[in-house]
Order: sequence, then C-alpha cells, then structure tokens
Amino acid sequence: MQQADRMQLIQPFHVMALLARARELEAQGRSIVHMEIGEPDFVTPQPVIDAGIQALRDGHTHYTPAVGMFALRERIAAFYRERYGVTLDPQRVVITPGASAALQLVMAVLVNAGDEVLMADPGYPCNRNFVYLLGGRPVGIPVGAASVYQPTAKQVSDYWSDATKALLVASPSNPTGTLLSEQTLRDYHAITAAQGGSLIVDEIYHGLVYDGQAATALAVSEDIFVINSFSKYFGMTGWRLGWLIAPHAHVSAIDKLAQNLFLAAPTMAQHAALQAFDEDSISILEARRREFQQRRDFLLPALREIGFDIPVIPDGAFYLYANCSRFTTDSYSFSSRLLEEAGVAITPGIDFGINKPETHVRFAYTTSMENLQEGVQRLRAYLT
Amino acid sequence: MQQADRMQLIQPFHVMALLARARELEAQGRSIVHMEIGEPDFVTPQPVIDAGIQALRDGHTHYTPAVGMFALRERIAAFYRERYGVTLDPQRVVITPGASAALQLVMAVLVNAGDEVLMADPGYPCNRNFVYLLGGRPVGIPVGAASVYQPTAKQVSDYWSDATKALLVASPSNPTGTLLSEQTLRDYHAITAAQGGSLIVDEIYHGLVYDGQAATALAVSEDIFVINSFSKYFGMTGWRLGWLIAPHAHVSAIDKLAQNLFLAAPTMAQHAALQAFDEDSISILEARRREFQQRRDFLLPALREIGFDIPVIPDGAFYLYANCSRFTTDSYSFSSRLLEEAGVAITPGIDFGINKPETHVRFAYTTSMENLQEGVQRLRAYLT
Repeated sequence: MQQADRMQLIQPFHVMALLARARELEAQGRSIVHMEIGEPDFVTPQPVIDAGIQALRDGHTHYTPAVGMFALRERIAAFYRERYGVTLDPQRVVITPGASAALQLVMAVLVNAGDEVLMADPGYPCNRNFVYLLGGRPVGIPVGAASVYQPTAKQVSDYWSDATKALLVASPSNPTGTLLSEQTLRDYHAITAAQGGSLIVDEIYHGLVYDGQAATALAVSEDIFVINSFSKYFGMTGWRLGWLIAPHAHVSAIDKLAQNLFLAAPTMAQHAALQAFDEDSISILEARRREFQQRRDFLLPALREIGFDIPVIPDGAFYLYANCSRFTTDSYSFSSRLLEEAGVAITPGIDFGINKPETHVRFAYTTSMENLQEGVQRLRAYLT
Repeated sequence: MQQADRMQLIQPFHVMALLARARELEAQGRSIVHMEIGEPDFVTPQPVIDAGIQALRDGHTHYTPAVGMFALRERIAAFYRERYGVTLDPQRVVITPGASAALQLVMAVLVNAGDEVLMADPGYPCNRNFVYLLGGRPVGIPVGAASVYQPTAKQVSDYWSDATKALLVASPSNPTGTLLSEQTLRDYHAITAAQGGSLIVDEIYHGLVYDGQAATALAVSEDIFVINSFSKYFGMTGWRLGWLIAPHAHVSAIDKLAQNLFLAAPTMAQHAALQAFDEDSISILEARRREFQQRRDFLLPALREIGFDIPVIPDGAFYLYANCSRFTTDSYSFSSRLLEEAGVAITPGIDFGINKPETHVRFAYTTSMENLQEGVQRLRAYLT
C-alpha cells in the first residue's frame, strides 16, 4: 500500500480517539461530560432553519456560481458595514463550503512546495495540514501568556525567512480565545507587506466575543485575506458554509480554484444564511453569546480553583486553554484518565502543536451550565 | 501580487465565460438555448426534498463524523447489493462533500509532487487540476472513437512510467458518455496492480445509462477506488454530496484527511440522501432517466443530420461529444459565434483537454425536449 509522503506529516485530531472512547463508555451506560467538542451545542436559529426549509420548498437544489450567490455576497458586505463600519466590495467576498475550504483556497493560491507559512503554536490543528497538503512547511511561532498567546511583531520578523509566503493568525484564536488588537493587525500587515508576503486572518470566532468588540483585519487594509464562517457565532456547523474576503487581485484565481476544487457551496445553506443577519436571528445569537459568556465566567474561576493555571482571560471563542502541570507532564494520558476515571472529556494539548502540549489541555464550554457544573464537580472530586 | 506556480497550470472552465456572456445576452432580452450546462435540469425528487425539510425540522444542524453518518454509509452499501449484486463493507464507504472532495481525497492520499496520474483526454476538466494542486503531473491518454473514447489496455501500459501512481477513468465518461465493460476494468486493474499503482474509477454518471447496465469496478476488486455522487442520477447537485469507496487499507488515511480538509459533508444533505434510494425516489429518477434517453435519441440524429460527426452512440451521462470539423477548426470561436449569432450555448472542446479540442464541442441535453428542438432548429438554420 503506497501513500503519498504528506500522509506521514498530516496528523489526525487526537481528540477523535478520546471522543470515540467517550461514545463507547456512553454506550456502556457511563455518563460523560463533554468539554472537548469544538462546535456550539445550540441548534441553528429557527429563522435560519425556516429559510432553509423555504429554499427547499422553492426547489433551490441546483448549483450556485463557484463564488456563491451574489445576494449573499452583498449581504455579507452589508454586515461588515453594519457591524464594523467597514465598506467592502461584494466582489471580494467568496462564499465557501465552510471556512475549511476558504483556508484551502488561500493556501493553494499562495503556497508553493517548499514555502513556509507562519502560524501561532498552539493553534488550530488543520492550519498546518493545509500547508502540508501542498508540500509547504508550516512554521509554528511559540506563543505564551505574556503575549496573550499571539505572535509578537518581533517574533513575526524573526521567524520570517526567504521561504516565508504568509502569516496566518486567528482572532479570537483557537485554543486560547484571545483577540488581536487593530494595532497588532497593523503591525503584522506592515511586516508582511514589507516582505512581499501575505497576511491571512482567521476571524471565524468573531461575534463570540465577551469583552469589548473584536477588530476586523478588513479595517486595516484591502490587501489582507480574511476568513470567516457561519459555523460558530451563527450556529450553522452542519450546513458547511463560510466565506473568504480576498484582495481584489486574487479573486479571479480563487474563483478558478473554487470551480475546480469545490464547484460551489451548498445552495440551501446559502439561501438560509441570507436570513442569519436579520434582527430576529441576531437577537437569538446575541442571547447565546451571553450564555457562552456566563459559562466562561463560571468555568474559568472554577478550573483555577481546582488548580489549572489559566493566566489569560480569553476574550472570545468558547475555549479555555489551561496549564495542567500541577497534575501531569503528560496531558494526553491525563485526558485519557479524566475520561476513564472521572467521566470528563477534554482535548489534550497535542492537537494544537508542539509548544508545551504535554502540560496543556483545552476545555470547551459548548455544553449547558448544568453539565459544566457537573464536570467541575467531577474534576474537583478526582483531582483535589 | 505573488501566486503559487500551480495557478499557471490550473485553467478556469472556459465555458464559464460563454455562460456569463449568455446571461448577459439574456439580460438584454435575447433567448438562449442552453446546451452547455453539466447538471440535470430537474429539481431534486420531492421525497428527498421532504426528507431534507424533516431533517431541518428535527434540528439536524450539527457536524456528522468526517466520513459521514454511518446509516448513510450502510444505505449505500445496501444499494450496491440491490442494484449490482455486490457485497460491500460500509466501513469502506466515505461520504464526501460532492464527488469533487472524493477526487481530492484520493489524489492527496496517493500522489506526491512529481508523480503522474494517467487519464483519458478528452476528460473531465477538474481531474487534471486535482493533480496539479498537489504538484503532480496529469498525463492525458488521447482517446478516440475507435476505442469508444476510453484508454485501451495497451495505451495504459504504454503510458505507464516509473513516475505513474494511478490511472483515473470514468464510466460513463464526461464528455463522451461511453461506458467501460467489466472486462476492460479487469484489464486496467491487472495492469495497475502489476505496476504497484492504483486504479480510480469515476462512476458519478452511473444510473444515467440508457443501453444495458453499467458495470461497477467494485465487482472487479476490493482494491479499487470508486467515486460516486448524489448529483447526477439522484439530482442533488446543490446539496454537495458524494461518496468514495476506498480499499480497506486507505480508509483511515482518508478519514484523517477528510477531518482536516472538509470536517464533514453537509448534515441535512446526508439525512435527505437516506431517502434517495427508496422506491418512491427511484421511480421518479427512473422516469427522468427515460426522459434523458428520449432527449439523446432525438438530439443525436438531429445533430448528425446538421453535419456534426458523432461516431459513437454514448451509453450514458447527458452529453454528446461531437466533431465539428465540417464547420470549423476553431471550436472556441465557433461556440462563441453559435451563442452570439444563433442563440445556442455549447461547450468548446478546450475544456476537456488537448486532444483535438479545436474540432470538438460538447452538447448537454440537460434541458427540455422543447428547448432541444428549438436549439436544433436554430443550429440548422445557422449552419445549413
């Protein structure tokens, strides 16, 4: 059995093995508190579901253009004006089958075999694999609490090499939930522009921000790739819909690639998403945002009290990235034991990179307050 | 503006420019007969739409596993037993966001930079671009009427080099609509197996076959990659759902890649597709199949009478691949003139490869008999 070399480099999500084991235990009657799952527990808001149903009733079952329905591209542009005060040409908006496709399109347009892409470590596991897919080299910038788990401008400059093509950052980030200020985005843009490289900003957790308002990189320059999604804030994971704002000069190349790689994003999802920005949907989403905030505000001090070190209060997303060195120097075995012996599922650090994964774990507050309280009680009983 | 080298190799669908121009002309009030469109004109069968609506009502809006819902994998395995008499382990079935994703997964698992993949020329345009994406080299095998537009076993042997990793064939093929016999599939498999390479068979037009029954490569060996889709026979293009049957040894690698590249196929589409195999859906689809056959049986002699040379009667799909050398040696300009001056849109040969594209065009019978009659009348008036 021959496989391409990249298959040695691309790792599965290690949490999947824990999730499968959790399902096994549940099938045996065990109760498991899930704090490992990276998607909102809420069902898609009813007005969006209703719009999806209407689209199906209306027979919208054919392909859309590869870059998406123009009405949705316009609606997204209008959303940036409403929420961020940013004017955006809808021609720069590309609708994608999830933010995954957006990440792949950007990487494929920019990265040759042998090229490097800088990214934060810890970071979203797929990012490095999109680069490996193309024969490129993802270069992790080790980040810590001192820089709120984001690369410093100095690090970006220091890590930039002749082979570097792009810097990929996320705000709020996964797994750490921290934001980038507009000034930091400006600094990144200045460095990447000076090097003739590209800046890619993952804003898929925008909207799920609890302290202040997140800055969008679109306000910084028209020359930045911005990736967003209907999955997280809008609660539409299973619909597989995201978007990409590309610099004008790259739009036709991205259109060409999207035609070939994906044909188009799901049609009924695009129709449904038109409803996601309306007042009735947004008011549901804002109530959920407040609920996520309540969960964070409960879980963070509770975990600290048990002995997890969480030096930075995350501004957004639905994750807490915790140092577990008081309990272990092998976070994978630790996560496995918590599952087997305490009935609590969390994500070991290894999924997020090679920067001290053995002393870090991620908690997701994508489950009800009751479940979180139960989880904390189990952790406290087991660990203290 | 820097772009990766592959962007020079990856071509857009040239028909898109013609389609855009057709839309422009229509916006100006011109009537255009569309015979360029590669998707069924029918809306998804009502029982499938109803199942999609029910899935949304039931709140199925979260992710499924990366390889798809197990119930759908089982249903597809059962379908192969019912329709082809082939026993298939559902663990080998991977649900994908369209056959596009299936093609990408297979190529990414098999092809290193510099590796070659053999494929028929003319053939589906995206195939070569999936190889270019990975730094591989697609190698077109020129095929003609004498071998019903499919590679001969001798050609496969002759074109196989030390760098070749796989042979990709399609049955029925696009743009020529011709089938591969089980014996030919066996020959291909013997050659690829002897070389230590892989055989990939695109069966996305299965079901849309008018003369006899298509053989599935699954009947030949468990060691073949088979790609299929809910788009064509099942009329579900906009849902973005396909599947891949992989050899056992590759399933976990494909799962790992699918997690990273796509996360999962759309959830509501998977629920809807469970209904696609039921009797009420199949009876609708079979009626449509007969309608496609009627269209073929009308269009083929009509085009021949006008002067297009169609030496092989296609067994399936919804295309006629025609030699237009009686009218032109520049099929792109010819297609453009037919659009502007006769109001008929067709696809120029250039989209399908470099094997005599200038004297070939593709007609799609994805429009009503009335439209086809009107199109034929316009062509006759303009060309004869």
